[in-house]
Amino acid sequence: MTLLHTIYLIAITAEAMSGAIMGMRRGMDLFGICMLGTVTALGGGTARDILLGHYPVGWIANPEYLSFTIGAAIVTAMIARHMHHLRQIFLLVDGLGLVAFTVIGCGVGLEMEAHPSIVVLAGVITGIFGGLLRDILCNQVPLVMQRELYATVALFTGVFYVGMLWLEVNSSLATLLALGSGFLFRVLAMTFGWKLPDFQGKEIRGLD
Amino acid sequence: MTLLHTIYLIAITAEAMSGAIMGMRRGMDLFGICMLGTVTALGGGTARDILLGHYPVGWIANPEYLSFTIGAAIVTAMIARHMHHLRQIFLLVDGLGLVAFTVIGCGVGLEMEAHPSIVVLAGVITGIFGGLLRDILCNQVPLVMQRELYATVALFTGVFYVGMLWLEVNSSLATLLALGSGFLFRVLAMTFGWKLPDFQGKEIRGLD
Amino acid sequence: MTLLHTIYLIAITAEAMSGAIMGMRRGMDLFGICMLGTVTALGGGTARDILLGHYPVGWIANPEYLSFTIGAAIVTAMIARHMHHLRQIFLLVDGLGLVAFTVIGCGVGLEMEAHPSIVVLAGVITGIFGGLLRDILCNQVPLVMQRELYATVALFTGVFYVGMLWLEVNSSLATLLALGSGFLFRVLAMTFGWKLPDFQGKEIRGLD
Repeated sequence: MTLLHTIYLIAITAEAMSGAIMGMRRGMDLFGICMLGTVTALGGGTARDILLGHYPVGWIANPEYLSFTIGAAIVTAMIARHMHHLRQIFLLVDGLGLVAFTVIGCGVGLEMEAHPSIVVLAGVITGIFGGLLRDILCNQVPLVMQRELYATVALFTGVFYVGMLWLEVNSSLATLLALGSGFLFRVLAMTFGWKLPDFQGKEIRGLD
Repeated sequence: MTLLHTIYLIAITAEAMSGAIMGMRRGMDLFGICMLGTVTALGGGTARDILLGHYPVGWIANPEYLSFTIGAAIVTAMIARHMHHLRQIFLLVDGLGLVAFTVIGCGVGLEMEAHPSIVVLAGVITGIFGGLLRDILCNQVPLVMQRELYATVALFTGVFYVGMLWLEVNSSLATLLALGSGFLFRVLAMTFGWKLPDFQGKEIRGLD
Repeated sequence: MTLLHTIYLIAITAEAMSGAIMGMRRGMDLFGICMLGTVTALGGGTARDILLGHYPVGWIANPEYLSFTIGAAIVTAMIARHMHHLRQIFLLVDGLGLVAFTVIGCGVGLEMEAHPSIVVLAGVITGIFGGLLRDILCNQVPLVMQRELYATVALFTGVFYVGMLWLEVNSSLATLLALGSGFLFRVLAMTFGWKLPDFQGKEIRGLD
């Protein structure tokens, strides 16, 4: 599936760059920047593989992925001062990456012959866990748990993709439609500021 | 073992609700709340399974567990304003869950034919890692490392359970006695505020 | 490989002590101190084994390692007030542990017949992930991502070790030379305050 693989390589490069930027903003050194970029890019697939027991983990079977993420982080460290001009492009590539990661993750779940709900979840985990691990390493509550339709886009993409396969839509067509509709959903969510309900948390008394 | 399984389902529901409440208090959106509830409820068994290499992980083999935790989190999001009235009941169900998780975790260790100390540890990890992962996602030092007899109750329950099996006590009886004595220990610890020693930390100079 | 194993046992003891000290400084109770010491000492090898799918995980196959780390943490809790006198010795043992962990981790990668870059990375992960997990549990950005040549020493040691094996140097000699040169590098880095470049992070605008 060449298109999906190409999108994947572009996406891990972009994710590594955005992780590297966040590391620089937190005063990390060059090692920390490379590591944060790599975790952001490859953490989702790694979490999925470990949870599913799908060995070898992606980047261990394909160490060249590490060249992409480490290379991207180093380039970022050199040109970061100018990268905010590219912010719009990054948001679009990030959205494309989110849906591509999700479709790829669903594919791994299917290959493991998991229950359909687990297949979708494998996609969602692949889509969001890189950013979640990045935020934990940066010592902040994961953004994905707080705001914007991000995980929801992954969930929609996964359900849509698995649903089409269940309807026996041709696999390449299902991939294209899932990528397209998921990406459109993400762009619309960003454009119009769609978000899930949250709650005036401070008023709520805890149970512990 | 039907009683233990019933307690397990009640316990993951209660844990998911308490995780959801904590997510709401931190201003998470609906996805974050469902995720935090699920991690709190199922994180302990997941950590145990990954560390032991016990695949498939519990909720991947039994995706219906996810319906319990996600359903519990959504219900919590709707009724949270009134749940503090149930605080006492939650503390009791949480204590029962802690000992049930521990006994179930020991069972997985036994099934893997691990060393007795690892069997006990598998129980302790099952009992406490859900809350530990919840606290990491909420960006705070895990409560279980700081105060109260919580991990100690899990340790006691695990040692007691494995000890009775070693003494060739009937398995169902050992389960009942471990659940009962562990739960009693937890209730006494809460009632009388028992805690482990800690240390005037700030006076101590670091080594790094 | 008796020398390496002896160094390993000394190193996990010292790492457990330094983790325990950090737990005491954060006001953790005795359970938290034992757990933080154990995670600091054994977390690197655990992360490596899970990522590589190398089961059983080290301390599950060798539960006696837990006696070392828990024993070391308890002793530390008793004598911590006097341990800062030993700071210099700790830094040296920590440096020796870093290179020993790295060489041992490379050995596991070789045993799994991984790609050379993954072998080196298995060493680096073994060397640094204990401290990284310790810092996450203490709710701070991992030190290893921020300052000093620490990960770089592990990387150098791993590349040097794997390179010598590739040049068909005798395995024991390669181990000794890697330990010696890695340790020397670490001592020089500490003595002269060598560090990787970092970046005036706050000026850089984010992409998210």
